[in-house]
Amino acid sequence: MQNGNDAHAALELAAGNGLLHRRALLAGGAGIAAALTGYVLREPAQAAPLGVEPWMREPTGIGLEPYGAPSRYESAVVRGGHNETAGNPSPGTGSVRTPLHLLNGTITPNGLHHVRLHSGVPDIDPDRHRLLIHGLVERPLVYTLDALGKYPMESHLYFLECTGNSIELYAKEPLKAGVERLHGQISCAEWTGVRVATLLEEAGVKAEARWILAEGADAAGLARSIPLTKIADDALIALYQNGERLRPSNGYPMRLLLPGYQGTANIKYLRRLKLIKTPAQTRDETARYAIPGPDGITTEFYLQFDAKSVITQPAPELALRGPGLYKISGLAWSGRGRGIIKKVEISADAGRSWAEAMITSPVMPKALVRFEMLWRWGGQPVVLQSRATDETGYTQWTRDQMLAARGPAGNYMTNCIISWAVNEKGELSNVYA
Amino acid sequence: MQNGNDAHAALELAAGNGLLHRRALLAGGAGIAAALTGYVLREPAQAAPLGVEPWMREPTGIGLEPYGAPSRYESAVVRGGHNETAGNPSPGTGSVRTPLHLLNGTITPNGLHHVRLHSGVPDIDPDRHRLLIHGLVERPLVYTLDALGKYPMESHLYFLECTGNSIELYAKEPLKAGVERLHGQISCAEWTGVRVATLLEEAGVKAEARWILAEGADAAGLARSIPLTKIADDALIALYQNGERLRPSNGYPMRLLLPGYQGTANIKYLRRLKLIKTPAQTRDETARYAIPGPDGITTEFYLQFDAKSVITQPAPELALRGPGLYKISGLAWSGRGRGIIKKVEISADAGRSWAEAMITSPVMPKALVRFEMLWRWGGQPVVLQSRATDETGYTQWTRDQMLAARGPAGNYMTNCIISWAVNEKGELSNVYA
Repeated sequence: MQNGNDAHAALELAAGNGLLHRRALLAGGAGIAAALTGYVLREPAQAAPLGVEPWMREPTGIGLEPYGAPSRYESAVVRGGHNETAGNPSPGTGSVRTPLHLLNGTITPNGLHHVRLHSGVPDIDPDRHRLLIHGLVERPLVYTLDALGKYPMESHLYFLECTGNSIELYAKEPLKAGVERLHGQISCAEWTGVRVATLLEEAGVKAEARWILAEGADAAGLARSIPLTKIADDALIALYQNGERLRPSNGYPMRLLLPGYQGTANIKYLRRLKLIKTPAQTRDETARYAIPGPDGITTEFYLQFDAKSVITQPAPELALRGPGLYKISGLAWSGRGRGIIKKVEISADAGRSWAEAMITSPVMPKALVRFEMLWRWGGQPVVLQSRATDETGYTQWTRDQMLAARGPAGNYMTNCIISWAVNEKGELSNVYA
Repeated sequence: MQNGNDAHAALELAAGNGLLHRRALLAGGAGIAAALTGYVLREPAQAAPLGVEPWMREPTGIGLEPYGAPSRYESAVVRGGHNETAGNPSPGTGSVRTPLHLLNGTITPNGLHHVRLHSGVPDIDPDRHRLLIHGLVERPLVYTLDALGKYPMESHLYFLECTGNSIELYAKEPLKAGVERLHGQISCAEWTGVRVATLLEEAGVKAEARWILAEGADAAGLARSIPLTKIADDALIALYQNGERLRPSNGYPMRLLLPGYQGTANIKYLRRLKLIKTPAQTRDETARYAIPGPDGITTEFYLQFDAKSVITQPAPELALRGPGLYKISGLAWSGRGRGIIKKVEISADAGRSWAEAMITSPVMPKALVRFEMLWRWGGQPVVLQSRATDETGYTQWTRDQMLAARGPAGNYMTNCIISWAVNEKGELSNVYA
């Protein structure tokens, strides 16, 4: 077998501090194979046969549950933040976040979907729940869940991101926390439901209607105004999440799904859609969830996410085990235009040089995509970053650019480049670079 | 508002017994809207305001669990068959089936993925599990789970179907059972893992190798021979299922994933890949899981599923509530060629006339696709069928054609057209038509 270092040297550099060209993966061959051995824990097996483990010796009876659960060895793969809510003075407010560093692919299993709650999870009886469409319509209508189920439906993979995800990047000093705590309010699922446009056609929208007020049936009564153009474009009443009914914390029995729009506008427990002329100026779109500018003037109805990406492995939760070859993996998404990610680039030198990563999942409109890149870490301190570019040509901005545009009071819709510093021990941390 | 029946009459028929043209959905307009009212349970709401339900009155504290679960109102949405295994004389054999009639979209949530077990679910410690690659290779290799995690990965939505799904269609008399019992051994998930080809490159395959023997680490020791061409094409060592680690009953911590191939060849708990010259002729590819022909000669290594489809709503579990407009919904898939579904047709007159359904989900290679069609049921007995055509031009055959080709001893890889009879009461049943 070749010497590991010689083989490493043969791999073509794509950018500074050891980012390796994708050709390294595509070309194959013995040189690459030998190089890869530098970063895996494989054991030559010429001599010893495999062990005969207890589970190979006799059949077991477990495992045919009506509704299955993860392996007991995966008990640490849970949503973060659930403990923080125990002593919360406002009952029912809080969030749980997706453990991005422990997942792979692009789908978020329903049990690990992030949640932001304003008044706890309502225990809604689906038979009693109703959806009212009223206001500037010819025929006000009320739908039961059963009724909605009979309408034509569509299924799409869409990301959902909390309006306040990554909000800590506005802090003066970088919060020492991991990818789950900082950026774990992003998930992706297959959402199936009825186009809102189908129901509006039935109700008959009056000519003067321009906006729609959406209200939820939980005690928070979260209500938001959405432009009718967005509703006509791709808004869904989502009834199924990854094949099954929505989870209670994600809006059971129905939620508004506005692909690419800030999470809080995707009203959960949807009970009312009112056609109106001008925005309702609810508390949740004026006092909250609006975007401050540097001049103190706030922009309301800034709803659509632009392109964003985050490296999920390695991350502060996952230290490197010494110099060698590593795989960088992460997620990218965009709500802009058709929401198609065009490329993701990675830098290992704080943005001085960039190399294009491989997209390793299907690229679907307004869905998460997975990217990967091989990286040879020499043991020196580096800063890892990723930046996504979407089909419209939009590329993620830097934190400095975002702060300049939004001022120090900025908070929501944080989509700047995210930086992980790697120190000499291989530990990662959240930094501004 | 128009009279419902007049509006129905205005909808364009696409095929016999009330199948409605897709233009009915696309064109929109007041006539369609009025027609749709015939099949929904909506209530005019001009007068009464919506009720104020208990869950709107005060915040609740529930719902921020580390790992979430479905609503308590969905407790009936479980896998079928789990009770049948209780008194099974062979411990650990049996299956649980996906409740297709209660799901929508195309993704199967991990807790409801179908399972076929030969020796129970092994309780595998992932740190002790190993994957051996040996036989006709330059360098036999053993991989830990950690090691595999560092290799380049890919994510794909792929269907998995049990080799014996729909086997009861070979019975002389149609079994009186529902879609879950008859056809519920089909699921679809996002599978993420390492290409087997990447590992083989590292091991160095000798020129004379043509097949690969895959063996599982459960007590059944299920072992199958797979052509090396398939392995090189798209075989994965799957490590993640819908974003999280595989479920124990689906192969934790790793399984072979052969897109479009019969389920039993997708070896769970994968522990060994041996490069060989000719098939190993294991019990599970000779005595079982081979395809009988009409002349008594069995075809071995008939592994790839052809196109197939099934109507999931309505189904024997879901009776119609009297004449009116209904939505027919179902799933289609193919393992042939690139595994792309081109069209799905529906017949309401036992195959005399066919109309093309709408595809309402993304069309991905070797993944489930969802189809829908509007249907006006007049109250008369009818037979509903669906048939899928894939990109290669292959169209599902009839049961008679399948029986003629495979003889009365046929069993596996059942992909003929599936027929649901609707009687005058609106009850559905499995029939041969």
